[in-house]
Amino acid sequence: MSAADASPSKQRLRLWLRLLKASRHMEAVLRERVRSEFDTTLPRFDVLAALYKSGDGLTMGQLSQALMVSNGNVTGLIDRLTQEGAVQRMSVEGDRRAARVALTEQGQVDFERMAAVHEQWVAELLGDLTDTEIAQASQLLARIKGDAT
Amino acid sequence: MSAADASPSKQRLRLWLRLLKASRHMEAVLRERVRSEFDTTLPRFDVLAALYKSGDGLTMGQLSQALMVSNGNVTGLIDRLTQEGAVQRMSVEGDRRAARVALTEQGQVDFERMAAVHEQWVAELLGDLTDTEIAQASQLLARIKGDAT
Repeated sequence: MSAADASPSKQRLRLWLRLLKASRHMEAVLRERVRSEFDTTLPRFDVLAALYKSGDGLTMGQLSQALMVSNGNVTGLIDRLTQEGAVQRMSVEGDRRAARVALTEQGQVDFERMAAVHEQWVAELLGDLTDTEIAQASQLLARIKGDAT
Repeated sequence: MSAADASPSKQRLRLWLRLLKASRHMEAVLRERVRSEFDTTLPRFDVLAALYKSGDGLTMGQLSQALMVSNGNVTGLIDRLTQEGAVQRMSVEGDRRAARVALTEQGQVDFERMAAVHEQWVAELLGDLTDTEIAQASQLLARIKGDAT
């Protein structure tokens, strides 16, 4: 049975398996590179990226949501990043739930350096696709349910 | 800055983030559904799927490779699936490394039932894309480095 003969749902299953495989492959390569080049982990990198993107910081709830992980997992990461001076907690008097975490200046500088290299790794991993194909793929992926960006 | 103005590497970064988000979203939905509908986990489902696809079974090394996880993680899963009667170990006399694991008949029947429902969930999650767009996306994703399927 050729690809063209497969039923619509089989073709969708094949797309899902390719999506998963591409995602896992890229994530594995990036995980190994942030470890060897920056001595850090992808979850830490993702926390820094989310805080960087936010500008003036996020509540723990917003951060968990941005990372699609549980609050519990984020708390430990934030504790360590705070100890290392990359992240600071910003409290709001009388409103514990409004407390935010944000990058320190040093955290911003360090993240920008890592992000620039990370961006080049991603470009390299997607290097077989032309600019037009990149745009096509982006538009198609943006239409998968639940992906609202 | 509009999407069209972004640098090539920024456009690739955006594609990677969409790829990751779509993959994580779909995986989260499927994880929850296999749990609630079949009382099982995605790693267990993936093991069964890999063994089903193999036809006559896989060595533990082949299984780890197919799942992109460590041997250690697979061993525990296989132990439990064997106890439950879904998987059987097939030994090769005098060659422990050639020992394979395969689905039992019951494992095959159960997996086929789950796989049919799983395929419908995937089709539903990708339901916003036309058949042509599914084919386009499949072809584009197949060209991401390291994805050889």
